[in-house]
Amino acid sequence: MKAKVYVTLKPSVLDPQGKAIHHSIELLGHNQFADVRQGKYFEITLADAASNSEALAAVEKIAKDVLTNPIIEDYRVEIES
Amino acid sequence: MKAKVYVTLKPSVLDPQGKAIHHSIELLGHNQFADVRQGKYFEITLADAASNSEALAAVEKIAKDVLTNPIIEDYRVEIES
Repeated sequence: MKAKVYVTLKPSVLDPQGKAIHHSIELLGHNQFADVRQGKYFEITLADAASNSEALAAVEKIAKDVLTNPIIEDYRVEIES
Repeated sequence: MKAKVYVTLKPSVLDPQGKAIHHSIELLGHNQFADVRQGKYFEITLADAASNSEALAAVEKIAKDVLTNPIIEDYRVEIES
């Protein structure tokens, strides 16, 4: 079973890395983009054949405790069976 | 219109950052995870009201040219209207 965790900066937090990417893209002549924000993405493979709800709970826990800084970041978890 | 770009290391490429996260999670007592791989995630806001296919083409181009190192990384683009 696989899980995907998406970690993004909260909308109120400035993203200088995304701004730099946006600026570089504009310098290359692409002007149709209004904003770029960078986040993190984790693909997690679960070892045993846990149920979907157990897997979701386990992944939610590590997403919250380890993968995300809750002061500045939000996360989203998806389970793929 | 928003686009999401997911950049992941190719399966054949080693991911020491993911391995370090996996090891840390195990030290915290979570043994149900077989593997963790880290990628990048970009949320791109498109400025003008381009059609879905134009937006997809523009985002595919920058995903390929700017956001991804094609030697070691794969990418995936999703358009949200």
